[in-house]
Amino acid sequence: MQKLSTVELKEKQPIWKQQYQEFKTRNLNLDLTRGKPCPEQLDLAIGMLDCVNSKDYLTIDGLDCRNYGGIDGIPEAKALFAEYMEVFPAELIIGGNSSLNMMYDIFIKAMTIGIMPGEAPWGQLPGVKILCPSPGYDRHFAICSSLGIQMILIDLADQGPDMDQVEKLVAKDEMIKGIWCVPKYSNPTGVTYSDEVVERLAAMPVKAKDFRIFWDNAYAVHHLTNSPSPLKNILTACKQAGNAERVLLFGSTSKISFAGAGIAMLAGSEKNIDFIKSQISFQSIGPDKLNQLRHVRFFKNMAGINSHMEKHKAILKPKFDTVQKILVQELTGKNIALWTCPKGGYFISLDTLPGCAGRVIKLAGDAGVKLTPAGSTYPGKKDPQDKNIRIAPSFASMEDIKQAVQLLTLCVQLATLEIIQ
Amino acid sequence: MQKLSTVELKEKQPIWKQQYQEFKTRNLNLDLTRGKPCPEQLDLAIGMLDCVNSKDYLTIDGLDCRNYGGIDGIPEAKALFAEYMEVFPAELIIGGNSSLNMMYDIFIKAMTIGIMPGEAPWGQLPGVKILCPSPGYDRHFAICSSLGIQMILIDLADQGPDMDQVEKLVAKDEMIKGIWCVPKYSNPTGVTYSDEVVERLAAMPVKAKDFRIFWDNAYAVHHLTNSPSPLKNILTACKQAGNAERVLLFGSTSKISFAGAGIAMLAGSEKNIDFIKSQISFQSIGPDKLNQLRHVRFFKNMAGINSHMEKHKAILKPKFDTVQKILVQELTGKNIALWTCPKGGYFISLDTLPGCAGRVIKLAGDAGVKLTPAGSTYPGKKDPQDKNIRIAPSFASMEDIKQAVQLLTLCVQLATLEIIQ
Repeated sequence: MQKLSTVELKEKQPIWKQQYQEFKTRNLNLDLTRGKPCPEQLDLAIGMLDCVNSKDYLTIDGLDCRNYGGIDGIPEAKALFAEYMEVFPAELIIGGNSSLNMMYDIFIKAMTIGIMPGEAPWGQLPGVKILCPSPGYDRHFAICSSLGIQMILIDLADQGPDMDQVEKLVAKDEMIKGIWCVPKYSNPTGVTYSDEVVERLAAMPVKAKDFRIFWDNAYAVHHLTNSPSPLKNILTACKQAGNAERVLLFGSTSKISFAGAGIAMLAGSEKNIDFIKSQISFQSIGPDKLNQLRHVRFFKNMAGINSHMEKHKAILKPKFDTVQKILVQELTGKNIALWTCPKGGYFISLDTLPGCAGRVIKLAGDAGVKLTPAGSTYPGKKDPQDKNIRIAPSFASMEDIKQAVQLLTLCVQLATLEIIQ
Repeated sequence: MQKLSTVELKEKQPIWKQQYQEFKTRNLNLDLTRGKPCPEQLDLAIGMLDCVNSKDYLTIDGLDCRNYGGIDGIPEAKALFAEYMEVFPAELIIGGNSSLNMMYDIFIKAMTIGIMPGEAPWGQLPGVKILCPSPGYDRHFAICSSLGIQMILIDLADQGPDMDQVEKLVAKDEMIKGIWCVPKYSNPTGVTYSDEVVERLAAMPVKAKDFRIFWDNAYAVHHLTNSPSPLKNILTACKQAGNAERVLLFGSTSKISFAGAGIAMLAGSEKNIDFIKSQISFQSIGPDKLNQLRHVRFFKNMAGINSHMEKHKAILKPKFDTVQKILVQELTGKNIALWTCPKGGYFISLDTLPGCAGRVIKLAGDAGVKLTPAGSTYPGKKDPQDKNIRIAPSFASMEDIKQAVQLLTLCVQLATLEIIQ
């Protein structure tokens, strides 16, 4: 990236400073921090609150969803969400309302019991490490931090993680036990892994017998264009490579139905799922089946889910387009920032010049626009170049987005000027 | 317990054998294994499926329960269930649909992270032990087994655990990290801990700094008589003894609203709760708030919960009475069995002569009546005297209970005869 000439910047400085002060007088209180659906999106699934009621709470087979039982899901929910996850029903566990919780559970059990029979719990080993393609999802990294697991930063490129880096590391280090992946419309950069990346992940030689790919397919059907990015089925690829146990897949309806009351899924080879179910049996008498029934009744089938996601797109696309429009208008040609134009997911990722992101986020915060804290998209909350900013435009209103992004671009320019002076 | 004379028994043997064979011809398929509510009990809360709907899903403060957020519960649910748990709202976390899950979570975090700041995770220590008053709840013991935690059997008497045993052990062994308690209408014996037991638990000197009482108050309002057993508030007692952090309390509405779709609670000192919340923040973006709202709307207040429990009692009491009636009719005066007559909870606990329980359960199973597997109420599934049988009459119909308990009494007599011959 070339820099804007110092002369040009200095000319603009007084104007920008004045504009920034003007923003401050507005007393804004805007929040672009999290990938949270807006009320209009939640309204799309409102019928889900009526389709299970006092007259009607049995599964097709007559199972009473109000009572105990069924640790892996009711049959019709397993059928629908196996199709959603592109696995067989026996390869799926339906959980509670949070896939994050299922991921955490897998990690903490890996630490305590082990992720597969016959291998040592990670907590008993010195220096277990997980590969973290970055920028990535802050909550993945936070799980590792909270459990004292070392993280190794892997560059995330347009096609997915830098596989040369990955292959080299996993081939020789037995303490590298896994890799975090958001393979489709990645958080925050929006990339979808290429077929080649999926195949290499599935087939690469690994030193650790209990190496796992944590495949958080959070945005599987969350398209923002009419030409969805295809993603190769990693479980099939792993099976074909003779590594069926290598991958654990996660998904949820948090950004399909209700963010706080969706259903979560965990999928993998039957061997993996059987082992995990045997562990879950110590922990739970089963998740909320009534909520599974609500989902199946409301969406009916994959076509129902897909047409529902069209409605989400109709709400989200104008917001993403507005962000793009302002970024283009204010920052194009200045060579002081680069940003993504994602085909799906919940985020736009903006890179400033190195050393600017923290300052931009501080300036925006001081003027009333909250952005995801600097460094959040990197392991240990440390962005090595201090340049990445995650923009989450789903929740805010169009008017708020306009003001917030306008301010953001101003802060980028002010912060750039500060560092190049 | 005195034994029935061998002569008397031998006289009866041919009749009993004939009766048993006759039972077998009925091809029964009855199940008294688990404390599972019957459909009529679930029907009592059926209004809960209508009181949150597409028109009405906001909290009193206008919070949208469909979206993300709130890891410890919506304010009105915290207010109601703090009263239920007899703690302050700041001392409470509302979870998902399973208190077992919250207990498991606390244990697995204790193993990995530690149960309080500054103390070593239990998984890093050699031979951590938990005291297990028994007979007790099989799933408590299963959590310990699954995590490789040693269990020490403590005798459970009429007033609670044998406190002389408990005090002696905890005073000298730093590796004893806690005690499981079902303090009210205990599973399976139905005892409620006396004030003295509660006070001694709260005040006793313990060697381990991170010792915890796991207070599973699962049957707090689950009375079977009009004179509920009072239970002293253990958190208050712990505070008064200067041991505020010693106890973690668990509760749930699984046997108040819906067994599979209730809400669970975890309570303790603010210091404990703040630490646990800081850990949960890595794990979850919050439990299902819509289901919390359903509970608050439906029950309204503690008076609502208490009057609701009267309706449960009206369904359960006749079932418990029927079991008692048959046990009295068939076994009284024979000195071959003793059983409890609980004032609340979900179980009747029956003790045979030593060495008989497994055989009784086998005989009953062979004739089509499933009982909780022998030994289940003891740590490691090993009843040292092989005498305890747990009877769970809630789910079965009255007619099924009659047949099942009639057969059970027959099996007790047949098995007794076998061992004394």
